[in-house]
Amino acid sequence: MADTQPPVEPPNPNEEGEDKGPSKSALKKAAKAAEKEKKKAEAAAKKQEQEQQQEKAEADNDYASEFYGVLPLHQSQSRPNRERDSIAGLPNKIDKTVFFRARVQTSRAQGNKMVFLNLRQGTDTVQALLIVTPEKISKQMVKWAAGLADESIVLVEGVATQTQEPIKSATISNVEVHVSQLHLIAGLDARLPFTVEDANRPELESDSSDAQYKRVLLETRLNNRVIDLRTNTNQAVFRLQSAIGDFFRQFLSENGFIEIHSPKLQGAATESGASVFKVSYFKGNAFLAQSPQLAKQMAIAADFERVYEIGPVFRAEDSNTHRHLTEFIGLDLEMAIEEHYHEVMELLDGMLKHIFTGLRNKYKKEIETVQKQFPADDFKWREGPEGTLRLTFREAVEILVEDSVPREELNDFSTENEKRLGRLIKAKYDTDYYIIDKFPMELRPFYTMPDPEDPTLSNSYDFFMRGEEILSGAQRIHDAKLLCEKMQNKGVDPESMKPYVDGFRMGCPPHGGGGIGLERVLMLFLKLNNVRRASLFPRDPKRLEP
Amino acid sequence: MADTQPPVEPPNPNEEGEDKGPSKSALKKAAKAAEKEKKKAEAAAKKQEQEQQQEKAEADNDYASEFYGVLPLHQSQSRPNRERDSIAGLPNKIDKTVFFRARVQTSRAQGNKMVFLNLRQGTDTVQALLIVTPEKISKQMVKWAAGLADESIVLVEGVATQTQEPIKSATISNVEVHVSQLHLIAGLDARLPFTVEDANRPELESDSSDAQYKRVLLETRLNNRVIDLRTNTNQAVFRLQSAIGDFFRQFLSENGFIEIHSPKLQGAATESGASVFKVSYFKGNAFLAQSPQLAKQMAIAADFERVYEIGPVFRAEDSNTHRHLTEFIGLDLEMAIEEHYHEVMELLDGMLKHIFTGLRNKYKKEIETVQKQFPADDFKWREGPEGTLRLTFREAVEILVEDSVPREELNDFSTENEKRLGRLIKAKYDTDYYIIDKFPMELRPFYTMPDPEDPTLSNSYDFFMRGEEILSGAQRIHDAKLLCEKMQNKGVDPESMKPYVDGFRMGCPPHGGGGIGLERVLMLFLKLNNVRRASLFPRDPKRLEP
Repeated sequence: MADTQPPVEPPNPNEEGEDKGPSKSALKKAAKAAEKEKKKAEAAAKKQEQEQQQEKAEADNDYASEFYGVLPLHQSQSRPNRERDSIAGLPNKIDKTVFFRARVQTSRAQGNKMVFLNLRQGTDTVQALLIVTPEKISKQMVKWAAGLADESIVLVEGVATQTQEPIKSATISNVEVHVSQLHLIAGLDARLPFTVEDANRPELESDSSDAQYKRVLLETRLNNRVIDLRTNTNQAVFRLQSAIGDFFRQFLSENGFIEIHSPKLQGAATESGASVFKVSYFKGNAFLAQSPQLAKQMAIAADFERVYEIGPVFRAEDSNTHRHLTEFIGLDLEMAIEEHYHEVMELLDGMLKHIFTGLRNKYKKEIETVQKQFPADDFKWREGPEGTLRLTFREAVEILVEDSVPREELNDFSTENEKRLGRLIKAKYDTDYYIIDKFPMELRPFYTMPDPEDPTLSNSYDFFMRGEEILSGAQRIHDAKLLCEKMQNKGVDPESMKPYVDGFRMGCPPHGGGGIGLERVLMLFLKLNNVRRASLFPRDPKRLEP
Repeated sequence: MADTQPPVEPPNPNEEGEDKGPSKSALKKAAKAAEKEKKKAEAAAKKQEQEQQQEKAEADNDYASEFYGVLPLHQSQSRPNRERDSIAGLPNKIDKTVFFRARVQTSRAQGNKMVFLNLRQGTDTVQALLIVTPEKISKQMVKWAAGLADESIVLVEGVATQTQEPIKSATISNVEVHVSQLHLIAGLDARLPFTVEDANRPELESDSSDAQYKRVLLETRLNNRVIDLRTNTNQAVFRLQSAIGDFFRQFLSENGFIEIHSPKLQGAATESGASVFKVSYFKGNAFLAQSPQLAKQMAIAADFERVYEIGPVFRAEDSNTHRHLTEFIGLDLEMAIEEHYHEVMELLDGMLKHIFTGLRNKYKKEIETVQKQFPADDFKWREGPEGTLRLTFREAVEILVEDSVPREELNDFSTENEKRLGRLIKAKYDTDYYIIDKFPMELRPFYTMPDPEDPTLSNSYDFFMRGEEILSGAQRIHDAKLLCEKMQNKGVDPESMKPYVDGFRMGCPPHGGGGIGLERVLMLFLKLNNVRRASLFPRDPKRLEP
């Protein structure tokens, strides 16, 4: 274990001797022929067995060869600082020796002298080839390579060779690696629940929002999420998730926002009494924040002017739909306003369009990768000078009424009516993205600022993607007296939220904001049909693992 | 409520008439002089009272004047789109009309014709002046301005005027705003628990790590955090906190990392049985994650190669020290390694130095602002080619032993010995920042990779700032068999963490990482002496609010 330098190579087995067949007999008595044939067969079988034993012995002997074998567990013994290649970069390394770590997606022997490996790094795959070659690639080495379990991790040295014909089974189709050394970094200790190749197969398109994978069921995938996450789709999905966060922060940072971190442990069940998770907190109880709403408003009362937060949001709602999680990532922001709450609405709109444009322009490869498994029309938004489509709640109601939805159903929008509205808007305005403004006051939480002209309406808005809500926001009440009045109207005792209300008693500027569900934006941009696919390790009422 | 345009101005009161004194009498009988004087005084008093009533009536009448008064609550009625200035930008607006929203830090009347306001935006303050001026500034307006409560929010129009002498009470010392209009956006509904001016006064330097504020106690501040956060110090502290997150992400993004979000709700109490918070989860229980350790390792087993997470970490430890919180922000990362775990250690080192350099170069103003209240030597790290100081645990022990600490105390480092080591290292190497490598295996969690040469040691490290640990990390065990063995040694049943262990059974590359406490880095960089000062709304065993 003293050194990562490979141990001394064992004597090379004489490969010439291995192919000897049994000697042939020709001139014998016919009567003893059958007997002799039998003996011959036995002898042949015995010889074969001996050969197998010899091969095994040689293989055992050869196991820690300079050219192949298992690397020491720890690594971390020495640092030769040898540069590693990426599979994606191999086309620039034609005829050069390359050296890289990769997964064995599949290994396929051809006879006993040749093996093809499909090697993977993230979403990139390349074909590698081992052929028995004297003093370079032993028969044992080929056999060993052929026996590598799918999903093993190997360290490969070889020459990047231009192929005559494109290799369809690999994403790098014009390069084949002619392997000179192959070492196992990490093998498998268990059977794969499904292969990554199977999990990569395209979904059939479906109208159902809860469409199950055809080849590998969603439930099976989520139970074995570590394997499922290795698919091209998921490698791309979570790069896109990370990118959404980056674009969100970038836009807000450029617009004078700072990032805050508010506590998820709360002394009292917050907001409008919706279901919260209770936590045992030393000798008492705490509650998990349903949103950073109260804290970010207090940050405004504390003069931070423009704040955002990216953090977990907890909802103890027992709903197992395609779009609810008990824990999701909220992209939240809050800002002081100068003249009108539309300042916030327009900033949110600008931010979302910055995300959409950023994804389309910089993550084309990832989006196309996902579309191979989840075929969908590209996400569409209005980019012309007419700007994002904005409707009032009342206008949206009229669109649905015109489409024969009974008006009495439309005091609020059901999920079904929301989707219907999305289809009608797509047909009429050719956009997957729009804003609905001026929601009725009674549909909104107590901290929502009423409309100054019509107190049954509110200065609040929702944003939609493909007919589903992804953002909810509003101007908030910054006046303590009005806030207390609205709390009491909704049955919330202002005393139960004293630190929050006190923030406004000490003077708070007019402000507004919004909260976005990260997983929903990701799901709807890509049309993944189930929010669980947009969460690394999703949580719902029935799932707390892995 | 129809419009934000100010209502029609009420008739301007005749200001000439206001200063009339009682008429004087001169040649009267001496016998009636006293009586008359008394009557005169009564008349004067009556007249004064009438005048006061008249003034009040005028003030009431004048209250919604074009030039001053209370703005309608909602704002959001119209959008004149009038540009707003920042106090920081006023020196570039000399002799121009400026228009901005600000807090009234103080208002101070001089006689009844003049009032000085100290106006604040974040850490910037400017002096504003109202002088009674015919047809512009009424006496009522001056009186009204003088009566504005500290911490009221006002909208100010005026002319930015160069001052003859620097104004020491304002951060913008060469500009005074000659106010022409003044409107109240938000007043106060309660008495301030302390003034922001008081809360801004410098701390006395103290050796005690739990030093209390001299002027306003930490407890009082935290109970009234919204006011406390308005101090210059806190405005700067939380800009610096946001900046640390930015530099962290920037460095990692440039080094091929993606951001992940792992669930805080866990099905089982995780890691080495340390205290976790229990959550009621529908009909069962869940636990709050003590770190994203397991999830980020699973992300490595899932081929994401390099991942980071910024998120809350929950620790149910009943310790009320200056450096423990029950909820803090973890800056966590995990990465596959190629040859040696020092790849991770060096990346973490590079990342921290990127943060330190970024703060020093881009946030000079904020650091200096904090130092006014918390005097401290600038944070020092080695920037030369010799690199960051690295010691092994054994070497660190020897340094303490040489300083007469009994060796038998040094199986682990107490907080006291850590600080002592920090002072010794500062004296010897002139650095506030160093790494201790190769901790004994028994001090580290089960998932830590043992040293390949000496199994009593581990491939693990801690990073220190000013003698306190801010980062803990290691190479992790990626081999399921060894992992299970180590779990059993530490009394953890591998079956209780099956989804985690399964990740390694399916092949996982060698990897390592680390976790940083954001608040600790902030506290120690600035020497705030108490981690609560580095948390927006801190949580400890005794504090769940605000």
